[in-house]
This record gives sequence, C-alpha cells and structure tokens, in this order.
Amino acid sequence: MVTTPAVDIIFFGGTGDLALRKLLPALYQADKAGLLHGDTRIFALGRKAIGRDGYLALLDERVKPRVNTDLDPDAWTRFNQRIHFNSLDAGRAEDYEQLLHDLGGVSERVTVCYLATAPHLFTPICMHLAAVGLNHPNVRVVLEKPLGHDLASSNAINADVAQYFSENQIYRIDHYLGKESVQNLMAIRFGNALFEPLWRREWIDNVQITIAEELGVEERGEFYDQTGALRDMLQSHLLQLLCIVAMEPPASLAEDAIRDEKLKVLKSLKAFTAEDVVTKTVRGQYQSGAIKGMPVTGYRQEHKVAANSNTETFVALQAEISNWRWAGVPFFLRTGKRMQERTAEIVINFRNVPHALFPMPIGLHSANRLVISLQPKESIRLYFLAKEPGDAMNLQSTYLNLDFHTTFKARWADAYERLLLDVIRGRLALFMRRDEQAQAWSWVEPIMRSWEQHSIAPRPYTAGTWGPAASGSLLARAAAVWHEET
Amino acid sequence: MVTTPAVDIIFFGGTGDLALRKLLPALYQADKAGLLHGDTRIFALGRKAIGRDGYLALLDERVKPRVNTDLDPDAWTRFNQRIHFNSLDAGRAEDYEQLLHDLGGVSERVTVCYLATAPHLFTPICMHLAAVGLNHPNVRVVLEKPLGHDLASSNAINADVAQYFSENQIYRIDHYLGKESVQNLMAIRFGNALFEPLWRREWIDNVQITIAEELGVEERGEFYDQTGALRDMLQSHLLQLLCIVAMEPPASLAEDAIRDEKLKVLKSLKAFTAEDVVTKTVRGQYQSGAIKGMPVTGYRQEHKVAANSNTETFVALQAEISNWRWAGVPFFLRTGKRMQERTAEIVINFRNVPHALFPMPIGLHSANRLVISLQPKESIRLYFLAKEPGDAMNLQSTYLNLDFHTTFKARWADAYERLLLDVIRGRLALFMRRDEQAQAWSWVEPIMRSWEQHSIAPRPYTAGTWGPAASGSLLARAAAVWHEET
Repeated sequence: MVTTPAVDIIFFGGTGDLALRKLLPALYQADKAGLLHGDTRIFALGRKAIGRDGYLALLDERVKPRVNTDLDPDAWTRFNQRIHFNSLDAGRAEDYEQLLHDLGGVSERVTVCYLATAPHLFTPICMHLAAVGLNHPNVRVVLEKPLGHDLASSNAINADVAQYFSENQIYRIDHYLGKESVQNLMAIRFGNALFEPLWRREWIDNVQITIAEELGVEERGEFYDQTGALRDMLQSHLLQLLCIVAMEPPASLAEDAIRDEKLKVLKSLKAFTAEDVVTKTVRGQYQSGAIKGMPVTGYRQEHKVAANSNTETFVALQAEISNWRWAGVPFFLRTGKRMQERTAEIVINFRNVPHALFPMPIGLHSANRLVISLQPKESIRLYFLAKEPGDAMNLQSTYLNLDFHTTFKARWADAYERLLLDVIRGRLALFMRRDEQAQAWSWVEPIMRSWEQHSIAPRPYTAGTWGPAASGSLLARAAAVWHEET
Repeated sequence: MVTTPAVDIIFFGGTGDLALRKLLPALYQADKAGLLHGDTRIFALGRKAIGRDGYLALLDERVKPRVNTDLDPDAWTRFNQRIHFNSLDAGRAEDYEQLLHDLGGVSERVTVCYLATAPHLFTPICMHLAAVGLNHPNVRVVLEKPLGHDLASSNAINADVAQYFSENQIYRIDHYLGKESVQNLMAIRFGNALFEPLWRREWIDNVQITIAEELGVEERGEFYDQTGALRDMLQSHLLQLLCIVAMEPPASLAEDAIRDEKLKVLKSLKAFTAEDVVTKTVRGQYQSGAIKGMPVTGYRQEHKVAANSNTETFVALQAEISNWRWAGVPFFLRTGKRMQERTAEIVINFRNVPHALFPMPIGLHSANRLVISLQPKESIRLYFLAKEPGDAMNLQSTYLNLDFHTTFKARWADAYERLLLDVIRGRLALFMRRDEQAQAWSWVEPIMRSWEQHSIAPRPYTAGTWGPAASGSLLARAAAVWHEET
C-alpha cells in the first residue's frame, strides 16, 4: 500500500454541498484505507464562523451518514483529528493571513487548495493566496467546474489564475475522468492488442456516449437556468469521454503525452456550421412526467426556474472527427435530466460483416457492440452473434460480460477519491489542461450562439423518457439507433 | 420445429457399442423432440439372431439408462415402435435379400446405411447393398472412423466404396464436427466482424488445439495397440478442428464451399521432413499413475496390449500452414489418454501490443487469448487485461465469459444427433470429403514412417499428467506455453 506524502488540504467552500457530499467522504475513505500520511491536515473554510466544533458537528451530520456502511470508529476519530476550521471571506485579506498563521506560516509543504466555490470567486481567492505567499511551487489549486460559461469567461478565469499559478500547479477537475471504468477504457485499448486494430473507421460504424440522469434540477434551478445541458455536461464530461475513446495511443503515460492526444481530438472535431446546428443537434426540455412511477414536475415549474425558460435540460448531437482514424464515423453525444434511467455508457458499434454467410437476426441493428457502462454499475459487455443450439445455422445475439465489482475484489475507489489522491501525488494526467478546455469551448460556442441567433427553442419531452423524438431521428438519418432500442 | 422427411435408417453393427452408447440414444432424443417423421423406421442389424424382442430388451438395458433423465414414456414407446431387427452376416448375400424384403422392396425412399462396424467390412457391405439395389441415389452410406490405418488402406476402402456409391452419397463421420461449439466457432468467425480482422498471422502468435482424455484404452487395447494416438485422434479430429480454425471464409454455406476451404488448409500444411519429425513431434505413452486420486495401470499392462508395445498414447506436434494468412504461426496439436483432465479446447493466443504503455502482469505469457472449450463444458472465454481498482495503472488478467448452457435455453443436441439429422436431411457440410481425408493421411504418413524408420519410441509420462516433459519443451522452443500453464 503506497501512502502519500504529508500535505495540507484546504477546502474553500468547505461547508458547501460538494465538500460535504463528495470530497470529505472521499478523503475519509482514503484515510481509512491508510492512504493519507499521518501528518496530513485538512483545513475546511466557510464564511460563517461556526468554529471547529461546529464543523465537526456538520461532519457528523452530513458526512458520517454517507460513509456509515464503511464506518470504522477509530478511523473516523483519526480523520476528525486532521480537521481544522477557519471562517474565511473570499475577498478579505486578513482572513488569508489568519489562515497562513494557522497553517504555521509559509513552508515548502505541499498544499492543495480545493476551490469548491462559484467560479467568480476563483480570481479573488488566487490573488489573496498569492498575496500571502501561498502560491509557491508546492501549492496546487484545484478548480471545480464550471470554469466559466463560455469561451471568453473561461479564458478570463484561466488568465487570471495564471497570473498567480503556473499551469502545472492547476488541476481542473472533471470527475468522470476519475472513474475506474474510464481508466479501464484506456487499459483495455492500450494494454491489449485485441481491440486497437478494430478501433477505427474501417471497423466502427458509430459511437454513442450517453450520460442520462433521472434527477431533475432539484435545488440548482437558479444556476442551471443560466447554464443548460450543453454547458453543464456536454462541454465537459461528454467531450472528455469522447477524447478517451478517440485518442491516439499515447507514447507513454506521462501527463502531457495523454493530454496532448486528447487535445488533438478536440482540435479535429469538425466545426458546426449554422446548418449543422439545425440538422445535427437536438435541444430538449422536460415536461411533467413520471420517474419510476412517481409523478414529477416539468422543468419550467421547478423552483427558481423562469416560467418561460428556454434552457435545455437535454442535448443530443452528432459530432465528427476529421482525421484518418475517424473520418465519417458519427459520434453521437447525448445527455439529459429526468430521463428514463440513470445511466452513463459508451457504446462502440462495429460494422457488420462485409459478406453475410448467415442471415442476421430480425430487427438487430448491429451484430457487434462494445458497451462500457460507467453508471450505475461499472461493467463491460461485448455483444456478438453466436449460433443457437439446434440443427440450423441460426444466429442469436449474446454477450460476453465483465462485471468489475464481482470480478475485482480490490477496494473500489470513488472518482473523487482517485482524483484527490492524484492531486496529493502531483499527477496531472487526469485533469484538464488549459488549452484542452479552451478548445472544448471553441467547439461548443458556435452551437450555443446558433441556438440563440436562430431562436432554436428546446423541444419538450416527457420526464421519464429518453428525450424528444427528434433524438431518435437524428440517428435514423445516419442509419443508426440509440443503444436502448437495439 | 422442422421435422425431417420419412426415411429408413439401417444400423450395421446395431448391437455394438457405438450404436447402443451413442447412436440410438441420439435418435431417441431427436424423436422425442419431434424431429423424426412419423413414418421413419429404424432397422438394427447384428450377427446374432436375437430377434426384435431381444433387441428391444437390449435397448431397455443399454439405451434407456442413458436417456432416462429425459425419459418420456410415451416417446420411448413410440421410438420402440420404429425399431426392426434383422440378423445379418456382412458377407452373406441372402441376409441382404431378406433385409430388402423386410424393407418392402426397392423404393426411392431415403435410406441411411450407417456402417458402425470395423472398416474391413465396409467393402463387403457396400457390395452387397449394391447387389440388392440398395445403392440408388437416395441411399446414403455413413462411414465411421477409422477409415483405414494409413493412406493406402484409406484410399483402398474409399476406392472400393466408390464402386458402389457416388461421393455425394458418402458421409464420413467425425463427430467433433457435430459439436455445437465447433459450429459456433464458424458462426463467431463469420457472423461477426469483430474477430476476422484479427484472425491472421499479424495478430495471432500461436494456436493450440488439445483433446485430452482421462480414460485409458479400456477394452479397446487390441485395436488401439495397432492404431495409436496419431491415427486415432490427430489425423481425424485434431486436423478437422485445425481446418475450422484456419480456413478462409467460405463464399456460402454450401457443403462444397466449406469443404473446399478445409481442403485448402490441409494442402497448405507444411510437410514434415525427417528432422522436423524429431524436433517438432513428441510421442508419449502413459505409465501407471493416478487419475483423480485413483491409481491406474500403465499402458503396457492394459488388457490385450503388448508388454513391449511402442504404440503412442500421446502425441503433440507443431504444425505450420504455408499461406499468406498463417505463415509462421505455430499450430500446436496435442492429444492423449490418461491425461490430467478431460478437456478439449482450442486456444487462440494473440500477439502482445507492439508498444507497452503498461507493465505486463508478472508471469503472464499473453494478454489476449480466445479459448473455445468443447469438453467437458462448451464455453467461450476471451481473456484480456483490465485495470485493477486502485490508484496505480496496474493491469490484471481477466476474462469475458460465455457459457453456452446457461445462455442458450434452447435444447442442446448431442453431436451425433446433429450429424444423424444432417444425414437424414442430406446435408454433407459436416462430413469429410474423400479428398480431405486423403490429404490428411498424406500429411500424417511421413510422420508415422519417420517414427518407424528412426525407431522414435514414445516417451513415458505418468498417467494423470499433461504428458511427457518434452511436450512443454516443444512449445518453449517457440517461446510459447501450453494454456494450462498460463
């Protein structure tokens, strides 16, 4: 078991939803597994002066229930002992000086500053950190999404932060990259000779990447109404997954080797013309419906959502990558709220045989599919045709199945745990580089602008379905079908 | 459910081991499944005049216990009603005239003559059948192996039979071709685009085909001592499996389309020089040992085996196919009695990745293997490397698994049942053509002659192991390992 060096981890937004729901539980799991150094300290920051006791009470109330299936009382105690709390106003210099004082002054110690705050606070926080000397080479700053809402704002934030921190100190999180099955996709592609020869236009007909949620906007209505599915999910998570699927094999696992290849994919994405936006993108907005039999309200009736909102809660589009490997292969990306199932998956549809010796089973669209499931359960399935028992040569679709959770007995780490440990260890490979992010925005912006300019309103879809009918038509025009319909 | 036309099935050797152990049970299963026409009749022939009652008693005693897990009393009764019995001496013309009479005279009815007898009887039987007109175009003759013991005797028998029957009336059985998983290999190769691009020297490192038995020679000592493993198993079953693995995709499923491709493989087998025989073949003979903890005797102590016998009960060799697809890829064939496990499998070992991004797990010889298991349980496994959960990029060998019996709920037919139904339907694809068989002998003969000429005696191996050590060395020289050692 490889532990980590002694570090200080500072959570800006320490009393916020992300910290309590995801980050502190992940750190606890890492600690329980013995992966944190004995001297590693955790500084939680929040505006209200609740004091350390107040914060520990918050941990008991909000974090402990999340980890109670794995609760080890001694580990919980030890974890609590690492916790410090400071009240801090992001714009107040004195609060940073107090923080520095409580840290014990400037040292060379690795210090992780996790900015789990709204993005407009990134600049002041970084400025004040630098002002007290907390931007020396061993300080790392973790930026949560969203990092801006378009190319200009994203560039502005990155430029600001870059005044105080160099690129290799900046860790831009996309938590999907921390998922075991995403890393397994790289292992499967590049650790095996089996798939790579087929991983190209000659053998692949289309790729589908879906992140579907059953949840609605819940309490995030105000933020979400300014954001929408394209910015919230596609520009970040879906494009990152597309990069992992489409990238060339890197020459090594060094962080820039991998990130360079991802950037190349983003640069090869065919730009959307105004016409493409009309024919190759679908915006949707959920209406009232039912999830698992429970009635749910429509998006416009959600708390803090404008009654005439035109924000999309669903987007599907057909991307193309203009390079030798992928020219002509549609990459269908789709994400939405209040969809029929909570699922995240990557589906690689291989081409059919050039010469059919056997009749295809009726209604089957493609014989061979590789389905990498990221949510809810991580698994890999390889669908192919085998012969039905009996005296005729009748083929039937079946699959080879790998269920990670039953196969691998080693402890399964949450994506955030993996990423936090990588920050602690100074490994940048699973975080987005500035140019990657800018390139992703560059490709997405024309779509957003076209929607505005041409007043392309989102189409309604009933909550609890797979989205608007236009989503199916999008694929039908390319002679494809969404995976759930095969 | 597709039934078959009304036919007469005549079993020469109807009181023999094969008929009672395999053929009659298979026909019963087909009947129970409703696959036999209401008017289909079964004529069992034997030398002793036990009469129909005597034969039915034999069925009760020998066949019923074999099918009792599926016994349907009504089906058993109906099956018995199809049975006729004639005593017949293979060389006596009058007996054939009586048989013809009992059949109801010559007609155009499809008549299957299954020759489950010693091969020296094939010629007289065919001659007498022809003499009474039972060789018209709708008569089919099924020849059991062994069809001779070398090229000359095999050619002689085939030439004799050809005097009375044309090639498309002759069904030479190799029951391995009737196995579901062998046909599934064709379905998998040619019904899916997934494997075929990799099915060649550029991506395959070596192929291993093993048929291992736990049994010894049992009561067949006299026959086996004149035969040996090379003739008994390799010349027939192993080469047939090699053909299915190595053949080019046929243009259609027409019988000659498939058999032509198999013949091409046999013709491309690189001929063995005397030196090759020394370096690329291993003969073995089992000594006393233990199978599943039970002590067993050595081959030379078996009933009716010569005390100084030099017959091999084990053979392993390295075949090569000289064509564009396979040049340089070793095909390791291995078969033996009294081995460690009863298993029949085909192992395709793919090459490793050209450029290793990840370290290979220690001791793992090849990352990617396709294992088609024919015995004892039919299954397909695809072995590959996936990432261990955790924060390092450590790869672990795992597999995708398809278990035919649990996946396919349709009734599973025994190989003999499948083949009998194919004879009834007049489908020749799964039977060996004369030229295939001659070509297989042509390739095997020099090996046999070399063994004799250079007095290459079989090496002893302990019963209950995988054969002589030289078998492992054979592969080691080609930088390969037998599958059970990976």
